[in-house]
Amino acid sequence: MADVDDLLAANAAFYAAFEARDLDAMSEIWSHEDHVACTHPGWATLRGWGAVASSWFALFQGEAAMQFILTAVAAHVEGDVGWVTCDENLLAGSQAQTVAATNAFVRAGGTWRLVLHHGSAVVGA
Amino acid sequence: MADVDDLLAANAAFYAAFEARDLDAMSEIWSHEDHVACTHPGWATLRGWGAVASSWFALFQGEAAMQFILTAVAAHVEGDVGWVTCDENLLAGSQAQTVAATNAFVRAGGTWRLVLHHGSAVVGA
Repeated sequence: MADVDDLLAANAAFYAAFEARDLDAMSEIWSHEDHVACTHPGWATLRGWGAVASSWFALFQGEAAMQFILTAVAAHVEGDVGWVTCDENLLAGSQAQTVAATNAFVRAGGTWRLVLHHGSAVVGA
Repeated sequence: MADVDDLLAANAAFYAAFEARDLDAMSEIWSHEDHVACTHPGWATLRGWGAVASSWFALFQGEAAMQFILTAVAAHVEGDVGWVTCDENLLAGSQAQTVAATNAFVRAGGTWRLVLHHGSAVVGA
């Protein structure tokens, strides 16, 4: 289960960087390859680290601080690829929203790096 | 590129089964493991083949026939895991909608099987 534990730690680090609005930490967590992909809720899919990094920069500038409570966290490892699905229960000021998230990581040199994030608002949640 | 070609063929077969509303074909395409996950637009994430299969059954009963035109298709293979991101340009009757999709597959015995589907409506598209 060490594989899954490490993967879950990488997933937790992603949300810690998101909460802290820490672009340097986000940059450490993501792979910087051209094939990385990020789909924010309601957005078209962004591809490549340049576009993905720009989106985090914009989100961190524009939005109120957010707190994430993760529920229904499920992780699976297949070779050097691992993915986590979870519910992001978001609190931002007086707003609450649940986002269903998929996060995929690739392990290189013993470190899991994020290669794909997909979030979508859960209607009625 | 044979890996990617096979992966793209599996992705195309998924959309062919979706268009045809063919539950048997969908069952062939998906892995039947407990860890498979499916997030339809606006839905909470479903986990395990039983829950995922039930959702396709319900969608195939209830909805008008849909046509998919896929654009911005990008595929990546890492060992025996491959994933495809694409835009599903959906035509259903007089309705049109773009859904950003992530599809992840695991290769076993030379066959790519779907283990994760995540779709989210693109706002304003």
